[in-house]
Amino acid sequence: MGRIAYVNGAYVPHKDAAVHIEDRGFQFADAIYEVIGCIGGNLIDARGHLDRLERSLTELSIDMPVSRGALSFILQHIIRVNGYQDAALYIQVSRGVAKRDFKFPASDISPSLVVYGWHFNFQVTPENIKGVRVKTMPDIRWARRDIKTVQLLGQSMTKQAALDAGYKDAWMVDNDGFVTEASSSNAWIVKGKTLYTRRAGHSILKGVTRTAVSRVLEEQGLSWEEKAFSVEDAQNADEAFCSSATSLIVPVVEIDNKAIGDGKAGPVTKALLQGYVDYTQKGEGAQVSWKA
Amino acid sequence: MGRIAYVNGAYVPHKDAAVHIEDRGFQFADAIYEVIGCIGGNLIDARGHLDRLERSLTELSIDMPVSRGALSFILQHIIRVNGYQDAALYIQVSRGVAKRDFKFPASDISPSLVVYGWHFNFQVTPENIKGVRVKTMPDIRWARRDIKTVQLLGQSMTKQAALDAGYKDAWMVDNDGFVTEASSSNAWIVKGKTLYTRRAGHSILKGVTRTAVSRVLEEQGLSWEEKAFSVEDAQNADEAFCSSATSLIVPVVEIDNKAIGDGKAGPVTKALLQGYVDYTQKGEGAQVSWKA
Repeated sequence: MGRIAYVNGAYVPHKDAAVHIEDRGFQFADAIYEVIGCIGGNLIDARGHLDRLERSLTELSIDMPVSRGALSFILQHIIRVNGYQDAALYIQVSRGVAKRDFKFPASDISPSLVVYGWHFNFQVTPENIKGVRVKTMPDIRWARRDIKTVQLLGQSMTKQAALDAGYKDAWMVDNDGFVTEASSSNAWIVKGKTLYTRRAGHSILKGVTRTAVSRVLEEQGLSWEEKAFSVEDAQNADEAFCSSATSLIVPVVEIDNKAIGDGKAGPVTKALLQGYVDYTQKGEGAQVSWKA
Repeated sequence: MGRIAYVNGAYVPHKDAAVHIEDRGFQFADAIYEVIGCIGGNLIDARGHLDRLERSLTELSIDMPVSRGALSFILQHIIRVNGYQDAALYIQVSRGVAKRDFKFPASDISPSLVVYGWHFNFQVTPENIKGVRVKTMPDIRWARRDIKTVQLLGQSMTKQAALDAGYKDAWMVDNDGFVTEASSSNAWIVKGKTLYTRRAGHSILKGVTRTAVSRVLEEQGLSWEEKAFSVEDAQNADEAFCSSATSLIVPVVEIDNKAIGDGKAGPVTKALLQGYVDYTQKGEGAQVSWKA
């Protein structure tokens, strides 16, 4: 059997998985999403991702398309039927299909639900630990980055521009001169035994992995502050890294060609990466996951 | 025969018109669009809309999915096969279908093309001429509003919030304190014989109807300046209105409950509306349209 996706009530071959041209996710980016890591058949931090999915929907006044129990079942079924061990699971909910209009459609339409996945290798390799060079770029996104919508064009353009310039990723900088996030992950810096990451609010997405990392670092005797930092602060930090559900923890070794610390992944970042990998196996990460 | 849409090379029943779940228009809002008015089977300002479509694609490094001649043929065919006289024609081009990734896919994928329409009544009624009450709201959109992308969630939310508050539309106000646009049209004010609308740049979409209106007003002995104005400027103007391809010219008679002029559509706005309607029949509007 080929690859299977779930679309609006049916499990369908991935190649045939489609939504109507008047789906508001397609015409208005009126949709939210989550990506959940799956390691060894376990969904990582599923509770955090589903909590945030519900929050995003609430912010947009979109109903959950199915109950949380049903959504959990769909995720498990997609894992099982596709034989996923290590994979990324993708959930997208849009406001539904309606005659094109800027105003929201009448409340009797049903939200659309798409769930599917792809094989993904979470193995930490020497290449991962080498770290990446990032370029800072203006954050051109809208004012409600706390809602995990599919309005991702700005992030996609920014990532591509960084790649074109020979970097591995971008760190986005707001009008206030402070770093917001990487193109699709949260940005952190380390100074001594304290870590800094921007305060969760409208200006950034509150990462589920960011929350997990904040727990892991406390277990390691480190502390953290939600505090905005400038590019210069970051360049003068001891270490820097990104966190996300699929990339886990990625050391940042250069920002705008300035080496961070000695230009190699630092001890705090490496210990956190190991701690986070452990967390996905046996910590809170595993407690809130399901065995497929 | 039922309603027909064009999707990626095929004319299909509207109910079956669908795009893949990994179309980047659905997952990243990585798509642009145009809406073209069709009156009596004539496309209005088609050249302006197709010029802007090409510009938007160039800004995003997306190729035209078909030649301009082929796109014109598709538009004409959709008009003919659906028997449209007065209608709105919708074109959407996305970067195409690719494995989900923030970075742009390899350049060998084909952009997606969707073209369809709906019956639309352009008749100017006494209700239209009565004008509308608008509410000012913060402009929460991204920094590249000059590209006509489907990142429309901010505008949709803003429009809905204005409707929920009992107004007919929103005028969006940027961080600089100046009006940008209405939720889906350009904003204008009138002072004496001079009209003001915000300078076309990254902060607004350069409306095709806005350009047409600028020609019509010059024919009527009026002048215009591309100049940003504050909410207070607008409230103290003689007249105010919006312009767009489907709503044409809509008088604005109240802004945040403050009457503009005597609180009724003014003579300049009414003459411009008549002038624009004439333009769609015999002016530049008709010169650049096709007979279905």
